Amino acid sequence: MQTKKIPLDITKATTSRLAEVDFDNLVFGKYYTDHMMVCDYENGKWNTPKIMPYGPLSVEPSCKAFHYGQAIFEGMKAFKDENGKVWLFRPEENFNRANISCKRMAMPEFPKEYFFEALETLLKLDEAWIKAGDGNSLYIRPFVIATENGVSASPSSAYKFMIICCPAKAYYSSPVKVTIAQKYSRSADGGVGYAKAAGNYGASFYPTNLAKEKGYQQVIWTDASTHQYLEEAGTMNVFFRINNTLITAPTSDRILDGITRKSLIKLAQDQGLQVEIRRITVSELVDAAKNGSLKEMFGAGTAATIAPIEGFEYNGDYYELPEVKDAYSQYLKKSLQDIQYNRAEDKFGWRYEIQLDK
Amino acid sequence: MQTKKIPLDITKATTSRLAEVDFDNLVFGKYYTDHMMVCDYENGKWNTPKIMPYGPLSVEPSCKAFHYGQAIFEGMKAFKDENGKVWLFRPEENFNRANISCKRMAMPEFPKEYFFEALETLLKLDEAWIKAGDGNSLYIRPFVIATENGVSASPSSAYKFMIICCPAKAYYSSPVKVTIAQKYSRSADGGVGYAKAAGNYGASFYPTNLAKEKGYQQVIWTDASTHQYLEEAGTMNVFFRINNTLITAPTSDRILDGITRKSLIKLAQDQGLQVEIRRITVSELVDAAKNGSLKEMFGAGTAATIAPIEGFEYNGDYYELPEVKDAYSQYLKKSLQDIQYNRAEDKFGWRYEIQLDK
Repeated sequence: MQTKKIPLDITKATTSRLAEVDFDNLVFGKYYTDHMMVCDYENGKWNTPKIMPYGPLSVEPSCKAFHYGQAIFEGMKAFKDENGKVWLFRPEENFNRANISCKRMAMPEFPKEYFFEALETLLKLDEAWIKAGDGNSLYIRPFVIATENGVSASPSSAYKFMIICCPAKAYYSSPVKVTIAQKYSRSADGGVGYAKAAGNYGASFYPTNLAKEKGYQQVIWTDASTHQYLEEAGTMNVFFRINNTLITAPTSDRILDGITRKSLIKLAQDQGLQVEIRRITVSELVDAAKNGSLKEMFGAGTAATIAPIEGFEYNGDYYELPEVKDAYSQYLKKSLQDIQYNRAEDKFGWRYEIQLDK
Repeated sequence: MQTKKIPLDITKATTSRLAEVDFDNLVFGKYYTDHMMVCDYENGKWNTPKIMPYGPLSVEPSCKAFHYGQAIFEGMKAFKDENGKVWLFRPEENFNRANISCKRMAMPEFPKEYFFEALETLLKLDEAWIKAGDGNSLYIRPFVIATENGVSASPSSAYKFMIICCPAKAYYSSPVKVTIAQKYSRSADGGVGYAKAAGNYGASFYPTNLAKEKGYQQVIWTDASTHQYLEEAGTMNVFFRINNTLITAPTSDRILDGITRKSLIKLAQDQGLQVEIRRITVSELVDAAKNGSLKEMFGAGTAATIAPIEGFEYNGDYYELPEVKDAYSQYLKKSLQDIQYNRAEDKFGWRYEIQLDK
């Protein structure tokens, strides 16, 4: 996309905090880059986006985001290749999904040209925060919050669209054990599960804590009505490999339309792997685990990239997955990252270069 | 309850904004009283509650309440009787429910003695904001927000428990038309519908907007699985009077355990009315509307008190309710308010006096 002539209100930080960051012992979400983007919506329109030094907001206690959860977010990553070029991965997908989330939460949609102009300007300013090297990235967090003050349950008339960024390494460092939800639910038919609505995540923390107490790092959510269909893992979509077929649940109004998910589907299909996008039941999974046809399970998401699952719990029984040679998860992760880091041909046009003007 | 010796950190406002308030044309949620309560949770414990002048908070953009919706609230009212005494209505119920909501959202529970000491101190300081007279009250909004900074989806380690207050009149001024949900849902089995989680409200705004476009002020939510069972109205529980029987849905993990709801059940039973707490289907309601046995519908909640419903839409048909003499809704509203305003015997021990030390 060519840079549009969108006016931005830019205030540069006078000093950089980059030297404070210990990249060898990076704690995700501890350090934010020097700048952030803030765009205010009021009187029915989005104002000029502002790029300004990262810093606190002043909000009223009656801010509607606090009381009524009108808040959505996105997760993206910028990658630096060995020549110092900076790349985003399918950013239009994040932009589009942000607006899908906004619509479902009765929040105003954000203009595309504002998003790209502001994001590119922000990344140029904070480009030094993006480290090259496998697993390194800049995590980008666009989010929207309701900012009108009020304690009556109705949509806000004011919002902030913001982008903040922080340096990241891989999210999950080792294979995870998961448990399959039998009591708690993530979302309902006709609900907001397909949106990246803030409340979806907070709602999952308590059941996830219960899972962690039993030694499982994540919950695989099932449909709320029957708990028979496998859906997603809250911060990741989930793939199952039975024999040599890769299976993942179709998206729905309960399941997030993950960008990593759909990219992996495409990559797998492109490589001639058998991929089935269909509902899969817990009993099919348990049977496959028992008869040895379940070869792999893995989560897929922007933050986690691909998180191999080493086993799952269901109904009190733990099913450990076999160690497989030439795991699809490793192969697909490499294929994905080779595109993200500009090490492979971008045959689907997924890379988006940030013009650094060097 | 006797006032406990809980130390509070009190900073009084130097001037009052009370004179700015136009009580004759009160806009709900526009004016907040001079003081607020803020109590911080950090390092695994709640600090000393602070009473301080109402004013903005400084929060980081990465505040977890914004990103993951760890945020819950309560709604309460203080009433002033004709002798200037100030009364709360069943405040322990709100306190208990706040902690139920906190637990479900993986947030720490708040100490009871902190809550009551801080609330009473706050109300004493801002007592002049509470106006006597039917329909007048001080709306009290306790709420809890996650305040740790971070963009990884995990529970916050820091929180603020706050109480803010604003003068209120009756919430709905005229009877409402409602529509019965057939596509969208408020909550799932195993979800957070029974909690006053912020995200539950934001999630309802879009379907409510669609209803409003068709002339209906509220949605009566149905179960997400079948849309056959009538549940609640998002900001109110719902009662149906068929012939002379008052019916309301049982609470569940999808339905808020409303304090007005259970008080009305008790008042109705005490007066010898037939009350059934049971699941009620949409088809039963439609049949009752068609054969004339449906006499009344009304919502019940702290903000709305009792909101008579004049008709409902389902499947494209609109069912208007008859005008009834001696409506249960009016009778119950009067019974409830007589207790709240200290005009009637408090036989269930629901009133809670704020000792004004005059």
